[in-house]
Amino acid sequence: MTTPDSLLFCQLGSSTEADAAALGAKATQLCSLAGLSLAVPPGFALPVAACRSLGEGVKPALADRLDEAIAQLEAATGRRFGGAEKPLLLAVRPSVPVGVPSAVEAVLNVGLNDVTVEALAKESNDVRFAQECYRRFIQNYAHTVLGDDPAAFEDVLALYKEERGYVSDAELRGSDAREIAARFKAQFESNNDQPFQEDVRQQLLSTLTAMARAWNAPRAKTQRKIHGVAEDAGLALIVQVMVFGNAGDDSGVGRAWSRHPQTGVAAMAGEFLPQAQGPDLQARLRPLLPLSNGGSDSLQSLLPQTFAALEQGVAALEAKLRDAVEVEFTVEHGRLWFLSAKPGKRSTSASLQIVTDFVRSGAMSETEALLRIDPLSLDQLLHSTIDPEAKRSVLASGLPASPGAVSGAILFDAEEARALAADGVRVILVRPETLPEDIRGLHAAEGVLTTRGGMTSHAAVIARGMGKPCVSGASALRIDAGAGTLTGPGFTLKRGDIITLDGATGQVLKGTVNIRPPELSGNFATLLGWADRHRRMAVRANAETVQDARMARDFGAEGIGLCRSEHMFFEGDRLVAIREMILADRERDRRAALAKALPMLRADFAALFEIMAGLPVTLRLLDPPLHEFLPEESTDIDALARALNADVTLLRRRIQDLREQNPMLGHRGVRLLLSYPEIVDMQARAIFEAVADVAKSTGKPPIPEIMVPLVVSRTELDLVKARIDAAAAEVQRETGLTFAYRVGTMIELPRAALKAADIAQSAEFFSFGTNDLTQTTFGISRDDSARFIGEYASKGIFPADPFVTLDVDGVGELVHLAVERGRAGRPDIHLGICGEHGGDPQSIAFCESEGLDYVSCSPFRVPIARLAAAQAALRKSMQN
Amino acid sequence: MTTPDSLLFCQLGSSTEADAAALGAKATQLCSLAGLSLAVPPGFALPVAACRSLGEGVKPALADRLDEAIAQLEAATGRRFGGAEKPLLLAVRPSVPVGVPSAVEAVLNVGLNDVTVEALAKESNDVRFAQECYRRFIQNYAHTVLGDDPAAFEDVLALYKEERGYVSDAELRGSDAREIAARFKAQFESNNDQPFQEDVRQQLLSTLTAMARAWNAPRAKTQRKIHGVAEDAGLALIVQVMVFGNAGDDSGVGRAWSRHPQTGVAAMAGEFLPQAQGPDLQARLRPLLPLSNGGSDSLQSLLPQTFAALEQGVAALEAKLRDAVEVEFTVEHGRLWFLSAKPGKRSTSASLQIVTDFVRSGAMSETEALLRIDPLSLDQLLHSTIDPEAKRSVLASGLPASPGAVSGAILFDAEEARALAADGVRVILVRPETLPEDIRGLHAAEGVLTTRGGMTSHAAVIARGMGKPCVSGASALRIDAGAGTLTGPGFTLKRGDIITLDGATGQVLKGTVNIRPPELSGNFATLLGWADRHRRMAVRANAETVQDARMARDFGAEGIGLCRSEHMFFEGDRLVAIREMILADRERDRRAALAKALPMLRADFAALFEIMAGLPVTLRLLDPPLHEFLPEESTDIDALARALNADVTLLRRRIQDLREQNPMLGHRGVRLLLSYPEIVDMQARAIFEAVADVAKSTGKPPIPEIMVPLVVSRTELDLVKARIDAAAAEVQRETGLTFAYRVGTMIELPRAALKAADIAQSAEFFSFGTNDLTQTTFGISRDDSARFIGEYASKGIFPADPFVTLDVDGVGELVHLAVERGRAGRPDIHLGICGEHGGDPQSIAFCESEGLDYVSCSPFRVPIARLAAAQAALRKSMQN
Repeated sequence: MTTPDSLLFCQLGSSTEADAAALGAKATQLCSLAGLSLAVPPGFALPVAACRSLGEGVKPALADRLDEAIAQLEAATGRRFGGAEKPLLLAVRPSVPVGVPSAVEAVLNVGLNDVTVEALAKESNDVRFAQECYRRFIQNYAHTVLGDDPAAFEDVLALYKEERGYVSDAELRGSDAREIAARFKAQFESNNDQPFQEDVRQQLLSTLTAMARAWNAPRAKTQRKIHGVAEDAGLALIVQVMVFGNAGDDSGVGRAWSRHPQTGVAAMAGEFLPQAQGPDLQARLRPLLPLSNGGSDSLQSLLPQTFAALEQGVAALEAKLRDAVEVEFTVEHGRLWFLSAKPGKRSTSASLQIVTDFVRSGAMSETEALLRIDPLSLDQLLHSTIDPEAKRSVLASGLPASPGAVSGAILFDAEEARALAADGVRVILVRPETLPEDIRGLHAAEGVLTTRGGMTSHAAVIARGMGKPCVSGASALRIDAGAGTLTGPGFTLKRGDIITLDGATGQVLKGTVNIRPPELSGNFATLLGWADRHRRMAVRANAETVQDARMARDFGAEGIGLCRSEHMFFEGDRLVAIREMILADRERDRRAALAKALPMLRADFAALFEIMAGLPVTLRLLDPPLHEFLPEESTDIDALARALNADVTLLRRRIQDLREQNPMLGHRGVRLLLSYPEIVDMQARAIFEAVADVAKSTGKPPIPEIMVPLVVSRTELDLVKARIDAAAAEVQRETGLTFAYRVGTMIELPRAALKAADIAQSAEFFSFGTNDLTQTTFGISRDDSARFIGEYASKGIFPADPFVTLDVDGVGELVHLAVERGRAGRPDIHLGICGEHGGDPQSIAFCESEGLDYVSCSPFRVPIARLAAAQAALRKSMQN
Repeated sequence: MTTPDSLLFCQLGSSTEADAAALGAKATQLCSLAGLSLAVPPGFALPVAACRSLGEGVKPALADRLDEAIAQLEAATGRRFGGAEKPLLLAVRPSVPVGVPSAVEAVLNVGLNDVTVEALAKESNDVRFAQECYRRFIQNYAHTVLGDDPAAFEDVLALYKEERGYVSDAELRGSDAREIAARFKAQFESNNDQPFQEDVRQQLLSTLTAMARAWNAPRAKTQRKIHGVAEDAGLALIVQVMVFGNAGDDSGVGRAWSRHPQTGVAAMAGEFLPQAQGPDLQARLRPLLPLSNGGSDSLQSLLPQTFAALEQGVAALEAKLRDAVEVEFTVEHGRLWFLSAKPGKRSTSASLQIVTDFVRSGAMSETEALLRIDPLSLDQLLHSTIDPEAKRSVLASGLPASPGAVSGAILFDAEEARALAADGVRVILVRPETLPEDIRGLHAAEGVLTTRGGMTSHAAVIARGMGKPCVSGASALRIDAGAGTLTGPGFTLKRGDIITLDGATGQVLKGTVNIRPPELSGNFATLLGWADRHRRMAVRANAETVQDARMARDFGAEGIGLCRSEHMFFEGDRLVAIREMILADRERDRRAALAKALPMLRADFAALFEIMAGLPVTLRLLDPPLHEFLPEESTDIDALARALNADVTLLRRRIQDLREQNPMLGHRGVRLLLSYPEIVDMQARAIFEAVADVAKSTGKPPIPEIMVPLVVSRTELDLVKARIDAAAAEVQRETGLTFAYRVGTMIELPRAALKAADIAQSAEFFSFGTNDLTQTTFGISRDDSARFIGEYASKGIFPADPFVTLDVDGVGELVHLAVERGRAGRPDIHLGICGEHGGDPQSIAFCESEGLDYVSCSPFRVPIARLAAAQAALRKSMQN
């Protein structure tokens, strides 16, 4: 707009950040276009400062400047605003900061009235075109300025067509258009008890005022708050000369991408519609032409010079922005006008293609490339996704608990799911919520749907770990396992019916839907290679099974940050052994039961050590309350009693005794380990025997990190540590081997964070368990939060779900204190995070700012964490 | 011991704190006695410093000093240690700090051997006496020095008596005693494979060494840790000449109190046993004589001079210590020897009598009197207690959850309890744990027994509030409500059987037991009057009912610090209304249901305002999760469905839907108020209408303090506050009255404490809800803690139950932060505490140190809090 064709209240050379703050994104883009000498329709912008008080009316000084600016536009175009010949028509568009919902509609064709519409008809030699512009403007103006319901006008049009027996708009002629415009004016007068505004200057002033007012309406402010944007974000307004793509055969509208949006391959793509206006492009009433196809039906063949100008412009833009771009354009009598330019929409794999191309060509540094990619978008590459073109019949919505898409038969019982999956059936396990004892069913199922629980419920955490789609907390659904039905609003599915889960959106879809498989390219490896060079923090994985550990290594994990040893108890004979242990009254019997599980656990640990050879493996001692290992259902209890040859009444009583009001705050973690020290003895022995086995077979003893959960005082840790040390000494004596190991603790309760200096005296490492730390700091159970956390987000009470993104203000302060005090207690203490936040980019940035040594997350989150850790390190170094 | 008769390694004039640290309590007391020129048996003490390394053996320098000291004793008494005539015999006794368990037994008669025993027999002219002393010494020495089991010696004695056909010890003669002593020596040699030590100097050295070693044994250290005493607390040893109360008719032993232990009335009381030794006083084989009774069978009549000396000595001691004293004494041939002197045991009412006497006589200041009384001991005066003489048949033990004693018939159902209580039956409600819906049963019962739950479980809190005895968490008991039985180890009680609860100890006793009613005296009022003059913090009560509020006023509460408004919903028609509200699907229906409850709540609030006229009343909006208002049992659900004319399947489903994994961390407090703002609207309106009603009837509008629970962010509070403000404005408009009110919040979650600066912007007051704050800071559910908290205490992992005494280190830091930040956000913010800690003296001291404005506690705790607050203020001012 610094070309002779453009006018602005504020003079700008090119787009900078300051400009964007003053003018919003769209006006800044137009400045960029103008700065590259690309043609944009002449116009000017009212900057944010000028629009602030505009809602209260246009002040005389501003009105004078508007008049001046319009006079300049008149001079530049040889047209006159409100003129009976060659009338100047204007488009008024909002320009708002990037990422802010607009909340204000554009108003086109400002300047049309009973006089100018005739002049436009004459000039274009097209009455219908002119009158339709007029009719649209009346409706548009009535809605924006006076708040009229557009539906009233739509009804007028529909009624007219019915009177005439017209089926489609194409049947309308010039005379019809004139009559409809007249009826619209009558509707306007009846709606508002005042005549339509024929004064074009007043039309413009009212439009500007109304748009500013809409921007500051409470609804718009709430909208912004919900989107996490400042309520008082600024609005700028753009006033531009109208250009018409429907001015003849040498006119039209189109859209172009500098690169293919799906692949990112560098070749201009796009579409063109001759003799049409912008909205026609959206409506696709006629087939769109490609920009170029080697044949005769393309923009290139119809208007070769225009095509060349477009290609040159798009290339210049891409070079300038150093990014793939998307433009909208209008051709008026062969002349190309750019209406918008913005970063082009793209798939994740296209994003990777683009930045690697730019880096290879030398146009971009690795650093910039790394910062360009949203780490969360990598998820798209790791998981199957629903075909974006597919039709969706949504049955219900829940939380997008684990990404990926899958279709399968619904089953309500974990054992049945396992059996059918073994027969080759693709199964979706549907449960109110899952329990650790469902673990085998979860292994067998292709996806999981729960009607309760949040983003960090058991099902969600396990599914993410396994890389399986999961929708959790779909509270509109009701399971009747007895009847074998899943009921929702207006439907009932039966056991075996097919549904599709979209783990990326949380939608539950009817039947099968087209699904795209995951796509990993060389670019993915290239980018993550760069990330590894730039990050400071190590990235580990949370893994227990051989399968998970291998996957984690494949994704680049540098060790295991959290092996939840209880998961090793949930299968087969180990479950039998631990149940025997729980039900035994005497320590001697408990030790005997545990001894049966020891060889199995030893083998499990040894396998993990071998996969993670040379890398750290953090093993957490038993954490959950014992009742999680016992069945809940009556029939399951009967079966267990038979299996253990136990009295069913006694068994029921024992299960009843173990039940807790608030198991999350109950008899678990270190509290359990202190009540049943024989568990520590067995687990420590299994670990150290595995170390000895691996040392013997490989010659290199692994160095296990043994982690005690739920500690709030140093004494608790000391008591458990003494038993671990004793077990190590025993195994060393028995095997004649010497090996190293480390003992540390989770920091997952507020008191642990506060007492970190003290606890660090006995802990060689801290691992922040931010799931539990968030639960206790907020006093919110993640399993029960689904009932209100959504409302909290929509009302803007919490800026984000604190179980997804670490609450820096509250939980973050406790982490900060613990880091500070932990280092005071032990300067070389090793610090990491193993909560779900370890895979969340924003939370990873916080970990970098606190100087943690590593993050640990689900295997499928490892690539995301690698990139996020690199970005965090780069951003931190840029700040310094 | 500074008299010519006494010898000490360290020279001391009188008892001071430094002395006690060097010499322990007993030696210090003996110094006090000696300082008053009262006769104590000659002797000396090995101070703490000398005993530290004594376990490793007596070093030559120390041995030399011992020889010297013994030579002095020989010179002073005209006896010789190990002499064949007039042998010197010694008693070695431990002297440890006040409140420390001794862990070491005294050894008497050191210096007896085959030679000296004959000399003693000759001198006393009593072979049996001398040989029995010898026999006892052999056993005592074997046990202390060589660790022999005393039972082996008891067996020897029993066998001898069996051989001779003796039934009682009285039948033993001198020759028997000699034979038994010989057999004891033989037993000693057989036990230890070495002859008995005949060298008296070695006897003494070995005894001293063994006692020092026992003091430092691991078991003794653990004992000290459990009692909250430093493991390395010091031991001093006292060596004194033996005196014999069995030396003739003018000899004996006795005990005297300067005041009556039960009443505190100033008149010496006590008992005397002629011709006896200390242990005989305990054994009560013969009837004890009173010290004086006006007749012939008393110490006064038998030995008038001795009595006069005793009376004079005791009076001098009381004057010196400014406290009631208790002494043990021996009379040897008419000569009075004081063996110990310590503060006399006393009941609480005696304590009050004593300090008020002292203050009235000018011997003690109010301040000192206030500091002398343990606030918790006042509980004895407010509640009935089990007769200390009564025989107890203990069925089971639980936690002493609410003090008082009661006998009654056990019932397992709250409604049945209510019905029978209405018929005049004294009922004890027995439940696994109580729910809010049991409230009417709790009102009707005389006491409560639960098999689960801790010191701050629902039953415990409610019972304490009502001043009823409660034993909670008696986990050895099992209720079978269906069968109507209560089963424990080895017994089964049936519905209606009588038990007795001792809320002070947590014992459950069989049948009825003698119970003493509470006793409030003028001294009680006097003392609390002094307390009120010296305390800075206000004391409020937690109360909801008219009954509780009146009681709180009677106990001196200065307002209500916590009215849990949900308790008002648990009765009659209100419960029906809130259940209707919960089960309604539409907001309109919920509002209609709530409207029915409004007039009842308004009347409740008005009644509280009237009772607390002129005093602040803090009303907390609805806090518990909704499922607490719904029944759990199948039959209750059926009944509710019939009552509401609702579909039972739908009802069950709704109840199921509301169930939570961790209700403590669930959909409650402000989260519920934001989901159902109609609850806020109704409660605020009921409060303000009550304000208006009271303003009209009394002319003085009360100033309610409305408190929002479970807040973690300012936005939550703002949203609720806006509705409260709107309700206030409405009621003011409708009534034409203007009234003030305050809106504040609980600080009961770690995040609230951390964000206090921000929250204080919108809160006029904070009330620390330290129950929930402790639960979340520790990650421990108070309802589930019974399973391990006892073990934690016994292992010394937590210094105290953090639900009873505020954890200053962890929870206290959060309170401290919140106080600091709250004042930063609003300098004049009003601060109080309303958790159970508000009635705990140690926690009250913490509140004083943080400068809180008030504490609020159960009505029955108000007197305790008044005294504790005074003590805290006095101690703080003494520190400054």
